[in-house]
Amino acid sequence: MKIEAFTVDDLPLISEGDDLVGMILDRVEFEDFDILVIASTVISKTMGKVREIADITPSAEAMRIASKLDEDPRFVEAVLDECEEVLIEAPFMLVRREDGHICVSSGIDRSNIEAGKLLILPQDPSKTAAEIRSRIFDEAGRKVTVIITDTNGRAFRVGQTGVAIGASGMSPCKNWIGLSDLFGNVLTITNEAIIDEIAGFANLMMGEGGDGTPAVIIRGLEIFEDVEAFDEVIRDESEDVILDALRRL
Amino acid sequence: MKIEAFTVDDLPLISEGDDLVGMILDRVEFEDFDILVIASTVISKTMGKVREIADITPSAEAMRIASKLDEDPRFVEAVLDECEEVLIEAPFMLVRREDGHICVSSGIDRSNIEAGKLLILPQDPSKTAAEIRSRIFDEAGRKVTVIITDTNGRAFRVGQTGVAIGASGMSPCKNWIGLSDLFGNVLTITNEAIIDEIAGFANLMMGEGGDGTPAVIIRGLEIFEDVEAFDEVIRDESEDVILDALRRL
Repeated sequence: MKIEAFTVDDLPLISEGDDLVGMILDRVEFEDFDILVIASTVISKTMGKVREIADITPSAEAMRIASKLDEDPRFVEAVLDECEEVLIEAPFMLVRREDGHICVSSGIDRSNIEAGKLLILPQDPSKTAAEIRSRIFDEAGRKVTVIITDTNGRAFRVGQTGVAIGASGMSPCKNWIGLSDLFGNVLTITNEAIIDEIAGFANLMMGEGGDGTPAVIIRGLEIFEDVEAFDEVIRDESEDVILDALRRL
Repeated sequence: MKIEAFTVDDLPLISEGDDLVGMILDRVEFEDFDILVIASTVISKTMGKVREIADITPSAEAMRIASKLDEDPRFVEAVLDECEEVLIEAPFMLVRREDGHICVSSGIDRSNIEAGKLLILPQDPSKTAAEIRSRIFDEAGRKVTVIITDTNGRAFRVGQTGVAIGASGMSPCKNWIGLSDLFGNVLTITNEAIIDEIAGFANLMMGEGGDGTPAVIIRGLEIFEDVEAFDEVIRDESEDVILDALRRL
């Protein structure tokens, strides 16, 4: 197997209302089964998912948590506004969003935006991914997979990695169950979260600093399926042992 | 940025004592700064890290846990032999290995090996990675990064992904702290675990089934550093909030 991956270069800084997909279409000659990976930050920007810190009035709950974190209570208020449940309050806020996504600080970003503003995650990234996929098919005639990413910390290991927060045009997991391994043993347990393996690698290619590029194309994997199935990668809360442990804290 | 990645094709089935690195050198024209990613399964095989299930006598502790899991107590005994601490006993065994790596079932594999045998993780994968890196430099004159992977589950999300369990020739995390973002804000928190973003993508390329290929080359990232620094990606247990929550269960 041989694949290639490249960043979509020379995109301008993205602002509210910008036609990001048009800009990508202008710069990429899509092929069938390409995977287009886009950072949620630029999706949020085109949608104007931005809050002014100065406009936020913190609640008593936000002030209580902020004092544990030595954090701006207005930032904590924004985190609370965006989540359904706080699993850990300190030394960082680990929260569960309405769609089941568990992340630090509700995925709110203070970098990649002007000082004094907060960038909020898009409301329904899989819907946005489906719209982008449909438009690329309409305008370029190509069947592509679209993945929208965020960076997130993880248990037990240092550092953040890119994960998918929405997608269209693929099954998020490749289920090897029932297939045979090299020795003819039937595989009974492996369910590989290929969506996050792709999201992570694309995140690495995007970069975070001043030379960041928010869109990446991966070509040659051929994982395309004409499905909307992103939610399969979010573990059902009733089956989550670690979530359960955190709720008992 | 443009990168390419390819599997090392036509490797034979690997057995104890095989010269895996020689086989890879025969098949790949290395370039400077290539990243060679190898599945721990084949490293374990060359080292003979295999146990016969029939030879294992389960302890009372193994029998107790096995009854909760509806699992072969000899398998559980092998898991206990390979770990320092059991964090979760059921519905799956989440354990902490001596080197700090937290994983399911001590990383023991029952697939990718003959029935009746267990494949055990290599003892010091970073040492093995360093030896491989050194040999490639000696024989091909190329500076490469070597990463050894395993597949592992993760908190909150469905499915397994590839993670690094050892490496040589890179810093596992890219630290953006102190750099500026697109708006000139100084980044204060981002520390990206690029090693696992690479490991995951390579794992996807390797596959798990009968057409699995255990070695992948990634070309174009240029993350090479002449360092042995893998341990930086394992979170210090005193700083791990989720580990702490599991210990209180």
